[in-house]
Amino acid sequence: MEATLAQLASLVGAVLRGDPATRIRAVAGVQGARAGDLALLGDSSYLRFLPATGASALLVGPDFDPAATTLPLLIAQAPGQAMEAIAAFLCPPEERPEPGVHPTAVVAADAQLGPGVVVQAYAVVEEGAVVGARTILRPFVVVGRNVRIGANCFLHPHAVVLERCTLGDRVILHSGVVIGADGYGYEFKDGVHHKLPQRGTVEIGDDVEIGANTTIDRARYGRTVVGAGTKIDNLVMVSHNDVIGDHCLLVAQCGLAGTTVLGHHVTVAAQAGVKDHIVVGDGATIGAKAGVMRDVASGQTVLGTPAQDIGRERQSLVLHQRLPDLYERIRALTQQLGELQKEVARLDKAAEDHREGR
Amino acid sequence: MEATLAQLASLVGAVLRGDPATRIRAVAGVQGARAGDLALLGDSSYLRFLPATGASALLVGPDFDPAATTLPLLIAQAPGQAMEAIAAFLCPPEERPEPGVHPTAVVAADAQLGPGVVVQAYAVVEEGAVVGARTILRPFVVVGRNVRIGANCFLHPHAVVLERCTLGDRVILHSGVVIGADGYGYEFKDGVHHKLPQRGTVEIGDDVEIGANTTIDRARYGRTVVGAGTKIDNLVMVSHNDVIGDHCLLVAQCGLAGTTVLGHHVTVAAQAGVKDHIVVGDGATIGAKAGVMRDVASGQTVLGTPAQDIGRERQSLVLHQRLPDLYERIRALTQQLGELQKEVARLDKAAEDHREGR
Amino acid sequence: MEATLAQLASLVGAVLRGDPATRIRAVAGVQGARAGDLALLGDSSYLRFLPATGASALLVGPDFDPAATTLPLLIAQAPGQAMEAIAAFLCPPEERPEPGVHPTAVVAADAQLGPGVVVQAYAVVEEGAVVGARTILRPFVVVGRNVRIGANCFLHPHAVVLERCTLGDRVILHSGVVIGADGYGYEFKDGVHHKLPQRGTVEIGDDVEIGANTTIDRARYGRTVVGAGTKIDNLVMVSHNDVIGDHCLLVAQCGLAGTTVLGHHVTVAAQAGVKDHIVVGDGATIGAKAGVMRDVASGQTVLGTPAQDIGRERQSLVLHQRLPDLYERIRALTQQLGELQKEVARLDKAAEDHREGR
Repeated sequence: MEATLAQLASLVGAVLRGDPATRIRAVAGVQGARAGDLALLGDSSYLRFLPATGASALLVGPDFDPAATTLPLLIAQAPGQAMEAIAAFLCPPEERPEPGVHPTAVVAADAQLGPGVVVQAYAVVEEGAVVGARTILRPFVVVGRNVRIGANCFLHPHAVVLERCTLGDRVILHSGVVIGADGYGYEFKDGVHHKLPQRGTVEIGDDVEIGANTTIDRARYGRTVVGAGTKIDNLVMVSHNDVIGDHCLLVAQCGLAGTTVLGHHVTVAAQAGVKDHIVVGDGATIGAKAGVMRDVASGQTVLGTPAQDIGRERQSLVLHQRLPDLYERIRALTQQLGELQKEVARLDKAAEDHREGR
Repeated sequence: MEATLAQLASLVGAVLRGDPATRIRAVAGVQGARAGDLALLGDSSYLRFLPATGASALLVGPDFDPAATTLPLLIAQAPGQAMEAIAAFLCPPEERPEPGVHPTAVVAADAQLGPGVVVQAYAVVEEGAVVGARTILRPFVVVGRNVRIGANCFLHPHAVVLERCTLGDRVILHSGVVIGADGYGYEFKDGVHHKLPQRGTVEIGDDVEIGANTTIDRARYGRTVVGAGTKIDNLVMVSHNDVIGDHCLLVAQCGLAGTTVLGHHVTVAAQAGVKDHIVVGDGATIGAKAGVMRDVASGQTVLGTPAQDIGRERQSLVLHQRLPDLYERIRALTQQLGELQKEVARLDKAAEDHREGR
Repeated sequence: MEATLAQLASLVGAVLRGDPATRIRAVAGVQGARAGDLALLGDSSYLRFLPATGASALLVGPDFDPAATTLPLLIAQAPGQAMEAIAAFLCPPEERPEPGVHPTAVVAADAQLGPGVVVQAYAVVEEGAVVGARTILRPFVVVGRNVRIGANCFLHPHAVVLERCTLGDRVILHSGVVIGADGYGYEFKDGVHHKLPQRGTVEIGDDVEIGANTTIDRARYGRTVVGAGTKIDNLVMVSHNDVIGDHCLLVAQCGLAGTTVLGHHVTVAAQAGVKDHIVVGDGATIGAKAGVMRDVASGQTVLGTPAQDIGRERQSLVLHQRLPDLYERIRALTQQLGELQKEVARLDKAAEDHREGR
C-alpha cells in the first residue's frame, strides 16, 4: 500500500508542511527509516537520530521545532495515535484464515474442535484434546493429549502444549513456546541423579501472551499457574510449581526457579532471576539482571544480586563505581594518621624532656 | 480419577482426620491448590501459604500441629512418599504409545529402526540414521543423517538431532532441544567475520536428560561431549567442543562458552556463565548468576563475577550492601582525623609557647 | 573415512614422528580425544590436557617439545591449517541436497521459488513468499506470507520466518530460530496490559548467521534490522525496532531491549544485556554479563552492571573482591585513631597540669 503525504494528512487530520505529493510506503522509527518511510519522532530522545535518518517525511507533535529538519512534516496533536492509524492504513492487519482443518493436519478422532477453529498445515491435535471456538493453530503446532485450549486463542507456528495442560481464552503463544515440558527434579542417591516423575500440569489464564521460545514447565504435582492477563516475553523460563498472579510482566530472558509465587501486577525485568520457594508480593518490581534470594514485599522494587531495595542498591552501585577513589582515600587517611602518630610521639617526647628538665 | 480421603488414607496407610468422604481429584502444592485438591505441606516453609490455600485437604507429616488448620488431614509417616503414591493413583502415567511408524512420518529407506521403536506423526528420520530399540520419536522430531540414537530414548515433539550426532541409551530430549547446530566460530579478516567450518559432532551419554529449548552445538573438530547421567535444564547453552563429565547438573539459562571442560558431578546453577577454555574440577559448584573467568578446583564452590570462592564472595557481597555505611564511616574518620590534627597543632603551639616562656 | 598417519602427513606435508601405520578415524580437540583420534594441540594452554588425552596421535607445531609425550606426532608448520585439511579429508562436507520440492512440503500456489531451491519434507511456504535461487529449506521450516528470502540461504530444520520479514543472500538460520514474532509492547490502562499491534517487520542483511533458538522480534512500526555480515549466537534476544549494524557479533544468551541501535563491528558478549533506546557506537565491545544502561561510545569497551568503562570497572571488581580487607583496614584505622585521640587527650591533660603547676 502506498499513499501521498496529503492523503495521510487528511486521514489523520494532521497539518502538512512540505511537498504534499511525497510518496509514503511504510512507517518506521526514525532510527531505522529509509526512503519511502514516514518516521515517527516519538519524543525528544529521538532527535539525535534525525541527522542520519533516511525517512522521506516525519510525523511530529505540535511542540516540534520545524527548523530542526528540512524533511516534509505531518504535525499531529497526538502523533502516537496518528501513527497507529497510518500504520493500519498502509499495512492492514492479516486477514483471519478460513476456518477448517487443513488436509495435512492430524487431528485425533476424539479431539473436540469448537466452531470456527482453524487447524493449518501439519498441526497435530492428539487424543482427548479440546480446542475452543475460533482458536487458530498454525503449522507444526502440537496440542497434546487431553489438553484444553479456550476460545479465540492464537498458537503460532511450532508452539507446543503438552499433555493435560490448559489454556484460557484469548491466549497467544508465539513460535517455539513449550508449555508442559517436565520440571527439573531429581533425587540424588548413590552418586546418581534419579528423575522424579513430573505428574502435574500447566494452567494458563485468559488473555495471557507468551513470547517466542519461552518454556513453562509442568508441576511435579498439581499445577504451574500463569494468571490472567500476564504477559511473558521471549526466552523466559518458568519452572515447575511456580504460581504467577494476574497482570504480571516477565521480560525477556528472565527466569523463575521452582515453587516461586508471584502476586498480581508483578514485573520481572529482563535477565533477572528468582530463587526457588520465594514469594514476591503484589505490585513488586524486580529490576533487570537482579538475583532475588529472599521474599520481596508488595510494592517493593529490588535490584542487584542478592537483590535488595532499589534505593539502597543504587547507592551501593554508585559507590562500587567509586571504589578506586575510596581506596585512595583510605590510603591517604592511613598516611595522615601515621604522620599524626609521629607528631604526637614527638610532642610526648618533648613534654617528657621538658618535665625532666632536659 | 477421583477418590475419597478415606480411600487415599487406606491406600498409603495414613491417619485420617476430618471428613472421610472429602472428594479429592488431584494433588497440588499448598501454594497453588484449590477445591478438590489434596495439598502436600512439604515442610514448615510452606506454612505461610496455609491461610490462603484453596485445598480441600492436607497431607502432612506426624509433626504437623493439627491446630494450625481446620482442613481435613492425612497424617503420614513419610508424606513425600505418600504424595507420590497418591499422585500415581489419581493420575496414572501416560500409556506407552504403540510401536510402529505413523504413515505421515518420513523415514529414509536406509535408516535402521530397532524393535519396538515408535515414530509418530510427522517425524523425520534421515539417511543412514540408526534408532535403538523402544525409542520414541514424537511429532516433528528430526533425526538427521547418520545420527545414532540408543535404546529407550524419548524425543519429545520438535526435538532436533542433526547429522552425525549420537545419543546413548535412555536419553530424554524435551521439546525444542537442538543438538548439533554449528558452533559459533569465525575468523576475522579484512573487516569481515568468515565462518569456520564446524565439522565435529555432539556425543550425549546414557541417561542424559535435556530440557526444553536447550541448545548443544557441534564441535569444530571432534566432539562436544555430555557425560552419562548429566541433567540439563531448559534454555541452556552448551558450546562447541565443551566436554561435560558424568552426573553434572546444568540449571536453567546457564551457558558454557567453547572448549570448556567440566569434571564429574559438577553443578552449574541458573543463569551462570563459564568463559571459554576453562577447566572445572570434579564436584565443583558454580553459583547462580556467577561468571567464571578462571579454572575452578575440584570440590570448590564459586560465586560472583568474576567468580571467586563462595566464602570470600559472600563476605564481599555483604560488604557491598554496606558500602553506604562504609562511606559514612570514612567520612567520619576523615573528620575526626582533621579535628585531631588541629588539636595536635594547638598542643604543639602551646608547648612551643610554653618553652619560649610566652 | 579412515587413514594412516603416513597418509595424513603426506596430505598436509607434515613431519611424521612415531608409527606411520597409526590409524586415524577422526580429528578432535586434545581434551575430548580418544582412540582413533588425531588431536590438535592448539597452543600451550592445551598442554594441561595432554596427560589424560585418549588420542592416538597429536598434530603439533614446530615449537612443540617432543619429549612432552610418547604419542606419535605430526609436526606441521601451520597446525591449524593442517587440521582443517585433514578434517575435510576425513569427514567431507555434506553433499548439497538435490534441488526440488519434497512431495510432503506445502508450497502456496503463488509462492515463487528461484532456480535450484531445495524444499525438504514438511517445509511450509505460504502465500506470496519469494525464495531466492539455490536456497535450502530443511524440514519443518516455515516461510510466512509475503516473506522474501534471498539466494543461497540455508534454513535449518524448524527455523521460522514470519509474515513480511526479509532475508538477504547467504543467510543461515539455525534450528529453532524465530524471525518476526510480535514485539513485547503493551499499554497499561485500568490495571490491564493492552497489546499494542506490532505491524512492522524484520530485515536481515546479507551473510548473516543466526544461532539455534535465537529470537528476533518484528518492529512495532517499520523494521527491526540486522546488518550485513552480523553473526548471532544461540538463545539471543533481539527486540522490536532494534537496529543492528554490519559485521557485529552477538554472543550466546545476550539480549537487546527495544529500539536499541548498535553501530558496525560491535561485539556484545555472552549473557550481556542492553537497555532500550540505547545507542552503541561503531567498534564498541560490551563485556560478558554487562548490563548497559547508557550509550556506549565508538570503540569503547564496557563491563559491569551498570556498565562502565572496562578499565575503571576492572579496578572496582578487584577492589570488590578486597572489600573484606578494606573493612579490616577501616576497623584498624578507627582503632588507631581512637588510641591516638586518647594519647592526645592525655598529653593535653599533662600540659595543662604542668602549666597549672601540678
